[in-house]
This record gives sequence, structure tokens and C-alpha cells, in this order.
Amino acid sequence: MTVSTSNHFQHWMLEQQSRVEAALDSMLPTADHAPAGLHSAMRYAALGGGKRVRPLLAYAAGELVSGDLKQVDVVACAVELIHAYSLVHDDMPCMDDDRLRRGRPTVHVEFDEATALLVGDALQSLAFQALSGRELADDPGRQLQMVEILACAAGSRGMAGGQAIDLESVGRQLSEPELEFMHVRKTGALIRASVQLGALSAQTGSIDMDALDRFAKVAGLGFQVVDDLLDAESSTATLGKTAGKDASDNKPTYVSLLGVARARDLAAELHQEALRSLEQLPHGGARLGDIAGFIFHRDF
Amino acid sequence: MTVSTSNHFQHWMLEQQSRVEAALDSMLPTADHAPAGLHSAMRYAALGGGKRVRPLLAYAAGELVSGDLKQVDVVACAVELIHAYSLVHDDMPCMDDDRLRRGRPTVHVEFDEATALLVGDALQSLAFQALSGRELADDPGRQLQMVEILACAAGSRGMAGGQAIDLESVGRQLSEPELEFMHVRKTGALIRASVQLGALSAQTGSIDMDALDRFAKVAGLGFQVVDDLLDAESSTATLGKTAGKDASDNKPTYVSLLGVARARDLAAELHQEALRSLEQLPHGGARLGDIAGFIFHRDF
Repeated sequence: MTVSTSNHFQHWMLEQQSRVEAALDSMLPTADHAPAGLHSAMRYAALGGGKRVRPLLAYAAGELVSGDLKQVDVVACAVELIHAYSLVHDDMPCMDDDRLRRGRPTVHVEFDEATALLVGDALQSLAFQALSGRELADDPGRQLQMVEILACAAGSRGMAGGQAIDLESVGRQLSEPELEFMHVRKTGALIRASVQLGALSAQTGSIDMDALDRFAKVAGLGFQVVDDLLDAESSTATLGKTAGKDASDNKPTYVSLLGVARARDLAAELHQEALRSLEQLPHGGARLGDIAGFIFHRDF
Repeated sequence: MTVSTSNHFQHWMLEQQSRVEAALDSMLPTADHAPAGLHSAMRYAALGGGKRVRPLLAYAAGELVSGDLKQVDVVACAVELIHAYSLVHDDMPCMDDDRLRRGRPTVHVEFDEATALLVGDALQSLAFQALSGRELADDPGRQLQMVEILACAAGSRGMAGGQAIDLESVGRQLSEPELEFMHVRKTGALIRASVQLGALSAQTGSIDMDALDRFAKVAGLGFQVVDDLLDAESSTATLGKTAGKDASDNKPTYVSLLGVARARDLAAELHQEALRSLEQLPHGGARLGDIAGFIFHRDF
């Protein structure tokens, strides 16, 4: 990646991050609407932070199929709302008990536990409300497919299921296939859904959806390997959340399983595999390759 | 209501309760699928109990429009899954901290808090997965409308919002309009959605949807008034959940606001109003009137 491409991508990324922020801002009810406390807390949870990796993937996949940008905005919000709800619930005392997220107090610390519980619940509902809205697609069948993909990705055989396996695994040593089984659900499912939903923002007859899905799967797994490396090697200030949490929580990670060096090698292999999957796509997947670069070389 | 009508209704009610139980049973993943612990807990939360008032309303509304019974099964499951998730989360220590539900230990007692959190989250996703499935409607536009209705009913301006207002109101004395504002959301929104979704199981051109919705709104409010009366007057054994909880939690209720006698009068008025709304519907709303009788005269 040359410096100019990189600058170009940086610019695009900032632009999409602003887009999704604005779209979320107008989608989330304000505190003018009752219940004011819940609506403030939902906005605190979903606005003003994060890398917005899932929306970026949706926008990039949307570009690939020349999807309608307004429609991709809705999709980007929906996947980010599911992600935001999962963070709020995961940070709660009965789960990971984290007090810091994106450099700010977590929702249950800033408000209280009951509010955090309801914020997560309501953000999940809002994601499905967004996807079912009339402004989204001109093809209700395709729109329903989006609802189904997101519901499966979020549910007991997707993200929530991955979380459950994560909790069951504390203090146990998992094999690499077991660790992959967990992460394919916990992080991977919603990342795949982000790419699929972005690509469904237009008729996708011309796109190799299998190649796109292979990319998403590998990128999702790589995202987790890099997360494990960052948790082990970064400072809390850089991450904006408590560093070294996996080890202190006795959680199995790619670092605890493979060690730092082999985890780095795995990340590099997954990066190459992700890029290879893109070769079958128009313009070599264009923006998706840049996002893979961002995922695999980020430091937060 | 004559004894024979009542027997007839009892029979119908048991039949629909079995139907929704069987439909939920086949919809909920079994413990054969990973994560086994989460799937067991989801089944514990959603199967084997409850009056199934929301499914009954969906079946009755479905009958009124001669909706396809297989489609109403899906709708009945979806509303019950949302209801079941809300009970699991409401019972958690950071909310109502209840240890008994339907005569059994609550989910966080039987399993643990983290599992209860994930069970609720995954049951919500499953509700939307059900509504987006291909077996439901032959008209994707109508099916999308169902998703939107359920998402709004569950979200921050529906059920979750009502819960938030409930929490904010502990220890305060609310006015009757404030209490109604809360309950229209907390209990009413999902009850209305149950009737609407049942009625959407067929083309509803011939039905007065406004009258149907008035019925649902009044029945939903009445349901709550009766709940408050039962909480104040019944035993824990009869209710299958802790009785007298509202007063010990210092929650504003129709009984604390109006006293028992006036709360009873209000329930009777709402019952009459519900029945009047049905007069504009085919066969006088038939089964819905019987369900209103059940709601207003139940003792659990």
C-alpha cells in the first residue's frame, strides 16, 4: 500500500465514520422523548466513539455492488447498534466487569446496571426496527433476508452463543479449533453479516458472494487474533479499554494458546488469505483490501 | 358467558397453549447444538409455563381474519419469545431481583446471571429470526411490517422504555396519567403487537383495525390493573411468583394509587370498554371477548 493509497483510504474511512455517526445520531431517539434517561444512555452507548469496523465493512461491500448509499447507511447503523448493545452487556459486572470503554466509563458505571441492561435490550430492538423501515430497500424480500441474516448473526448460534462459549471457557485451555469455533461466533458472525448486508444493498447477481463471505470470515477471525495480541501487548491508554484483561480474567486467547510470535504469524497468514479471497471480486475488492490492512495493522 | 361457552373457551385455550408450546419447542435450538448450556437455559426460560396470553391474543386475532394457522404459530412464538426474554431480564438482581417465576427458580438462580443476560439477548434475536423466516408470509411487505411492529413494541418507546420508566418511578407517587403512560409501554405495547401481528397473518382489508387496536390497548391496560390487584391480594403459591412484591419494592401501582376498591372498578370499566370495542368486529370479535374475560377474571 503506497502512502497516497493509504491517505486516500484514511480520508474515505473518516468520511464513512462521520456518515454512520450522523445516521446513528438521527436514528437514536433524543432525550426529548420519554424515557429521557434511557434515551440519553442509549446515545452515550452508541455515539461518539469506536472504530466503526462493521459499518466500514458494510460501506465497502455496498460500494462493491454500487448499492444506494442511503440504504447502506441504514445497514451500517443496524450492525453497529447490535455491536454497541453487545459491548454494553459484555461490560456488565456479571460478564466481563469492565469499567472503561472507548476511553470513557462503561454504561453501567456512568448510569447504573439496570439502565445498562435496558440500553442493550433497546439497542437490539432498534437495529431490527432500522432494518424493517420503509426507507431501506425497494425489494421487501431482500430486506427480509437482511433481517434474517442479522438475527442469526446476533443470536444463540452467532454472537450471543460465542459469548456463552467464552464464559464457559474461562480457566480452561481450548484447542485451536475450539478457539476458532468460539470466535467465528463471538466476533466473526456480526462481521460476516456486516459484509453480507452491505452487499445486499443492491442486486448482487454479478458478485461472487462466496468469495466475499470467505473474505469476511477470515477477516473476522483475524480481527480477533489481532485483538488478542493488542490486549496482551498494548497499554490501557492506547486501547481505551482495560489492557491485559484476558490474562487477568484467565481467558483462553490466541496469545495464551500460541504465544505472541505464532499468533503474529497466524494474523499475517489470515491477512494474506483475506486478500486472496478478494482477487475474484471487481477491482480486487478495492476498499475491502484497505479495511483488511486496517484490521490487521491497527494498534487500538 | 354461559358455562358451555366457558368450557368451549377453556378447551380452545388449552389447545392454543399446546400449539404454541409445540411451536416454541421446535423453534428453540436443543442442547445438541453448541452452546449447550445457553440452549438449555433458553428452553428453560421459554418452555413449560405461563398463561401464554400474548399467543392467545395472536391466535384469536388470526382466527378473526381467517389467517393461516401455521403463520399464526410463528407470530405467536415471536411475541412469546419477546415476553420470555423480558421476564428473564426483569427478574435479574439489578432489576426486580426475583427468585421465583411460574413456580420455578428464575433463570439467573437456576443458572447464573451471565447466562440469564445472554438468554434474554438470544431470545430477542430469535423472535426476529422467526418473523423473518420464509415459512411465515407469502407477502414479504406484510412480513416486514410485522418485524417493524414487534421491534417498535419491544424497544425504547415500547416495552424496554416502560421498564425504564418503572425503574425511575420506584419510591415516587405517580399520577394516574403517568401510571398509564408507563403501562401502555411496559405491558401494553407487546399486547397490542400480539393482536396486530395475529391480524396481519392474512390480508385484513375487511377488518376494522382501529377497533381491534382499541380493544388491544384497553385489554393491555386492564391486564396490568388486574396484575396489580393480584400482586396485592394473592399468595405466592397461587401466583407462582413472589406476591406483595410491588409494595415491598415501593413501586407505584393502580392499587397504591387508587386503593383496592377503585382499582377493581377501573378493571371492570376497562373490561366493558374492551368488549364495546369488539362490537364493530365480525362475530363481535368472538374469541377476543373470551380472552378479555380470562384477562379480567383470572386469579394468577
